Amino acid sequence: MRLKISVVVLLFFSVTLYSSGQSRKIIHIPDIPGYKTLKCDFHIHTVFSDGTVWPTVRVEEAWQEGLDAIAITDHIEYRPHSKDVVADHNRSYEIAEPLAKNRNILLVRGAEITRNMPPGHLNALFIRNANLLERDDVFEAIKEARDQGAFILWNHPGWKAQQPDSTLWWEEHTRLLQNDMLHGIEAFNYNEHYPEAIDWAREKNLSVFANSDIHEPVSMAYDLTRGFRPMTLVFARSRTEGGIKEALFSRRTAALYNNTLVGKAELLDPLFFASLKIYNQAGKLQLGETKKIGIENRSDLDYELELVQPGVGFDAPESVTLKAHRVTLLELNGNSEQIAGMNELKVFYKVKNLMVSSTENLVITFVFANN
Amino acid sequence: MRLKISVVVLLFFSVTLYSSGQSRKIIHIPDIPGYKTLKCDFHIHTVFSDGTVWPTVRVEEAWQEGLDAIAITDHIEYRPHSKDVVADHNRSYEIAEPLAKNRNILLVRGAEITRNMPPGHLNALFIRNANLLERDDVFEAIKEARDQGAFILWNHPGWKAQQPDSTLWWEEHTRLLQNDMLHGIEAFNYNEHYPEAIDWAREKNLSVFANSDIHEPVSMAYDLTRGFRPMTLVFARSRTEGGIKEALFSRRTAALYNNTLVGKAELLDPLFFASLKIYNQAGKLQLGETKKIGIENRSDLDYELELVQPGVGFDAPESVTLKAHRVTLLELNGNSEQIAGMNELKVFYKVKNLMVSSTENLVITFVFANN
Amino acid sequence: MRLKISVVVLLFFSVTLYSSGQSRKIIHIPDIPGYKTLKCDFHIHTVFSDGTVWPTVRVEEAWQEGLDAIAITDHIEYRPHSKDVVADHNRSYEIAEPLAKNRNILLVRGAEITRNMPPGHLNALFIRNANLLERDDVFEAIKEARDQGAFILWNHPGWKAQQPDSTLWWEEHTRLLQNDMLHGIEAFNYNEHYPEAIDWAREKNLSVFANSDIHEPVSMAYDLTRGFRPMTLVFARSRTEGGIKEALFSRRTAALYNNTLVGKAELLDPLFFASLKIYNQAGKLQLGETKKIGIENRSDLDYELELVQPGVGFDAPESVTLKAHRVTLLELNGNSEQIAGMNELKVFYKVKNLMVSSTENLVITFVFANN
Amino acid sequence: MRLKISVVVLLFFSVTLYSSGQSRKIIHIPDIPGYKTLKCDFHIHTVFSDGTVWPTVRVEEAWQEGLDAIAITDHIEYRPHSKDVVADHNRSYEIAEPLAKNRNILLVRGAEITRNMPPGHLNALFIRNANLLERDDVFEAIKEARDQGAFILWNHPGWKAQQPDSTLWWEEHTRLLQNDMLHGIEAFNYNEHYPEAIDWAREKNLSVFANSDIHEPVSMAYDLTRGFRPMTLVFARSRTEGGIKEALFSRRTAALYNNTLVGKAELLDPLFFASLKIYNQAGKLQLGETKKIGIENRSDLDYELELVQPGVGFDAPESVTLKAHRVTLLELNGNSEQIAGMNELKVFYKVKNLMVSSTENLVITFVFANN
Repeated sequence: MRLKISVVVLLFFSVTLYSSGQSRKIIHIPDIPGYKTLKCDFHIHTVFSDGTVWPTVRVEEAWQEGLDAIAITDHIEYRPHSKDVVADHNRSYEIAEPLAKNRNILLVRGAEITRNMPPGHLNALFIRNANLLERDDVFEAIKEARDQGAFILWNHPGWKAQQPDSTLWWEEHTRLLQNDMLHGIEAFNYNEHYPEAIDWAREKNLSVFANSDIHEPVSMAYDLTRGFRPMTLVFARSRTEGGIKEALFSRRTAALYNNTLVGKAELLDPLFFASLKIYNQAGKLQLGETKKIGIENRSDLDYELELVQPGVGFDAPESVTLKAHRVTLLELNGNSEQIAGMNELKVFYKVKNLMVSSTENLVITFVFANN
Repeated sequence: MRLKISVVVLLFFSVTLYSSGQSRKIIHIPDIPGYKTLKCDFHIHTVFSDGTVWPTVRVEEAWQEGLDAIAITDHIEYRPHSKDVVADHNRSYEIAEPLAKNRNILLVRGAEITRNMPPGHLNALFIRNANLLERDDVFEAIKEARDQGAFILWNHPGWKAQQPDSTLWWEEHTRLLQNDMLHGIEAFNYNEHYPEAIDWAREKNLSVFANSDIHEPVSMAYDLTRGFRPMTLVFARSRTEGGIKEALFSRRTAALYNNTLVGKAELLDPLFFASLKIYNQAGKLQLGETKKIGIENRSDLDYELELVQPGVGFDAPESVTLKAHRVTLLELNGNSEQIAGMNELKVFYKVKNLMVSSTENLVITFVFANN
Repeated sequence: MRLKISVVVLLFFSVTLYSSGQSRKIIHIPDIPGYKTLKCDFHIHTVFSDGTVWPTVRVEEAWQEGLDAIAITDHIEYRPHSKDVVADHNRSYEIAEPLAKNRNILLVRGAEITRNMPPGHLNALFIRNANLLERDDVFEAIKEARDQGAFILWNHPGWKAQQPDSTLWWEEHTRLLQNDMLHGIEAFNYNEHYPEAIDWAREKNLSVFANSDIHEPVSMAYDLTRGFRPMTLVFARSRTEGGIKEALFSRRTAALYNNTLVGKAELLDPLFFASLKIYNQAGKLQLGETKKIGIENRSDLDYELELVQPGVGFDAPESVTLKAHRVTLLELNGNSEQIAGMNELKVFYKVKNLMVSSTENLVITFVFANN
Repeated sequence: MRLKISVVVLLFFSVTLYSSGQSRKIIHIPDIPGYKTLKCDFHIHTVFSDGTVWPTVRVEEAWQEGLDAIAITDHIEYRPHSKDVVADHNRSYEIAEPLAKNRNILLVRGAEITRNMPPGHLNALFIRNANLLERDDVFEAIKEARDQGAFILWNHPGWKAQQPDSTLWWEEHTRLLQNDMLHGIEAFNYNEHYPEAIDWAREKNLSVFANSDIHEPVSMAYDLTRGFRPMTLVFARSRTEGGIKEALFSRRTAALYNNTLVGKAELLDPLFFASLKIYNQAGKLQLGETKKIGIENRSDLDYELELVQPGVGFDAPESVTLKAHRVTLLELNGNSEQIAGMNELKVFYKVKNLMVSSTENLVITFVFANN
């Protein structure tokens, strides 16, 4: 008797152990003052172009991974499965939409305009009718998207297949920019990244994106038990499709690739501090003494800090990692008489995994009361 | 400069860290004397019936997970995507076949005959033409499969949707058995198990199966970083489709579900011992002394041992787990003068995760030289 | 040049990857109304008895693992290292105390009175001077502890070395109970558990404990990357030594072993609900329709639910696991006209990993608004 | 009844899940022709100097982690626990020795001569009597070690506490070298690395080391569920203390830190190839066709390859990672008519995580038959 039951329980237990089942992960990346931080992926394929999963899988994946919004962006010009899969360009959205409503995932209607370089591949988001994007002339297609009110981004600008030698900005892209036909750019795509795109986004005021451009099941490409798919963080006034659209056009995005986050300092700085809870040990730091600061990182990101200048009257650690969901101790050691007179201690770190350009890190300032 | 490079490397590193990439896991479950131990899944769906992935995904998953063989078994009678996916019953096999050849995955042509209970759902494996299985009368369909030389198994016999109260064997199944139209049965399906099926397989001489019956991407249903999908182990004379067919008809299979393996003692016993390398400490065990045996488990399975009878002249641990890829120490303590006279020490354990029936474990005997 | 730097970064990265470093894990087990839920281990050894680590290691481990309080309870009567380690019975506490203050870990002064059965081993907590517990007569030693105001618990009551055949309650324990010399009992110790102790705690009004009784480094005994050491949850009015003492004497404890928690229903029920955030889909459930409830489990425990009686007018899942830090969907299906008339839906589940006795689970009631 | 048993099994199961128990991990780093590859750590502390664990813990850790040999190297001049721990300099070895024999761990008698820079800290290995190393003059102490036949290495040469600004080689080290009193150097220590030391080892013919210099329990410093402690690989003629000594003096070592291995090309090259099993697809590569090579990496190391020069007549991947215990596909694409005439295909990769100097990688050559 015992054995039979032990099997029952072992199996039951195994299922709870191995099966990811019908549940949704919580991504701990905090909101910032004034905005919700939405986790999004705006570049996704299905069997209706050259992807290998049914549209509903994309919604289920997004729900299980904890995303807020996705765009299915099947290619207009490239549909290798069309012998067996017979449908128009709006079909993948229509199939995914009911499950998206059911799961409360924001589903953005999109399509990928797929041409040679220049201008290469572009995603049109928030379109109304993908079928109308099927045009011979690429600029006609993009114009149609714009006229439908689309937000348009340049996909994988440094993709070797289209820019084998170096990642160039073509005059065609300038033309698109001048005609309100280019609003964003991918800094990260699948497992590639493009430093130039990080800087173009900054110089030309484009929204920066990290998208998966996923064709296979997401979990075949990323180890979701330890990390995320590439995600575009959208800082939106509300968790609605309208809120996302407003935020994208207002350039309030950041690009997350594993533990590296790229965006504007005015967005990353509040995100960093919203991630932390700080425990300041009471008492005034004295020469030769140590003041302990406990820093709890409540986010899923590890923050890797590197000191940028010495403290005034005290020493701080050269480098420290604030691990996700842990409290890290920061020890400040008084090194001069001066310290006794100070009411606050300022410590300046650069955050190595928060980038504001392709070469510069976000620099943050801790201000700790000293009393 | 340093920063830019650090980003490069961080990203590169991240990719190697998170992406499962183009690689194949090695499953460490050993061959047994005379047979190769093939890892197989004979119940799989695609978008061509009610699954949600393209057929090539099933081959790629199998390759990455380390499987040797799969059968794509789309439903004959149930094709909810047929409005968009237009093809005959052989199409999913045809699409998967080239990649299977390329990846050296043995692809078995199959189909699922999908009817009410009795007789419920049956998989026909090694068929030649799935289209001919589309018949009004279920027995005509099964007969057609048999006449094509198919191996036929009863799927999820205890599925609540068809056997809500108890898992029954119907006279229709007896009829199938008598007419060489039933050769195997699933003891495990997706995340369910059926104790009755384990015993029927034994009593009625059917091959026992553990299949995934997967509809979604495999990694949405199972945590592949820590475990396996359900697998049918096939003990074959060769790693060929013919070798598998011969083994199935010869009833040389075992059903693996996470860490629980079900099958005949004559197959599980050699598999258990083929998993181990034993280091026997030199020297004769004496009264009041201890003899250490190092047992290296080179398989991916944890073996959970429970003593079934005391040793003669020595004590052995009541229970011990031989963890996968670790050396476990077994300590034998001499408890009588008798021990000095013995040239070998026999220890009898039942292996709690190796089942020979729904209630009985495999009992194994260690024989350690004592000198 | 690039290579050198890539090494630098790879190594830096590796360190952040592998080293647990100077950080403290956050254990997510919520407070309950009126009480803080403190994570404690009241049975720990060091090199000053038969343990193998220095006392400061016990504080550092507790801090890194996220514990609030520990008691170092070295044996009074058993000190195998005394040839090399020469000190009195208070020494291990004195060595650990400064680091405990520094790390804000509550360090309870304790000792283990170590005798044959009966009465076996007992821990005395909150003593003032361990040296005075060194007495020939065990009852004199226990009396001394009581006179110092100690809380006294019976350790590993079912330990095979002292109770080989069955776990007995001896008259000596009744005598201790009657003389206010026994206040608690371990239901879990190291990797053992004692069902009888769970029921004795309930019948005889003793505080129930799960302690590690750790001798080696904690991480040699438990995989801290996936689970916890055994912990006693203390429901205290304040995070102070006094708060813990009051709670122990008031019998407000629960015993946590991996994912199994044992205690009184009046403590486990609020803990369960404090772990959850519930998202109730708007709208009234109708016959033939489905109402989705999202249940977010913010704790580190997986709750394994099993339906105890059918809902009135609707069906609920037979079994569901609320995984830690995930949102699980509960689907309620209207199955009678009746349902339209109900303003709330009551669902009754037992929680399989929350035990109120050795054989009974906590039964919880969800009450969902239906409108 | 069922519940009680379910608890029993859940707990049993949990124990097998979380407890690392009495078992030894197998480290998969292969032997090379002519030599056994021994996994060693030659810099370890206990409570007998400033460490925090009992000497037996060091043996148990080494056994569980899969090491072959360790040296306990307590400080001669620094013993902060001496008020409580009273013993001579040989005591920690004597305490550890019986368990080492029992566990078949090779225990090397050692000590750390602990002085200011120059010459800093040096480990003396294979000494006979540590007490005789207690001398006022550091060179007398080192001479005594040498006269006992010791192998002497310079520990953490770039340790900031002793070399704050830059890592210097002092004339004292030249003097030691000239007097046969310096034979090895640490390139890795705890979580630091010293590029200069890598090059000094090469230029001055010293054995290169990676040691943990562990003071706390090993698992508090390293996540052993995913990686290793720093290890010195010793290529020995036999798994004996004599074999290790001969190998160290013959400079046959490599330094392993996480996934980075540093050593001589003549040792790393055979180690790399001994890790692999190669499956070469039959058939001659033709222009415009693809030849698939399956590369199984049977070691625990991920090898990160980067192409150093194009193939003749075919293209090979720019970069590929051979993941531990997986088969990776290498695709070679014929790009000229030339290819048809070649009987073997040579591919040249540098291995980014195998370093032969602080800036140079090992370059390996695959030679694949082409027919």
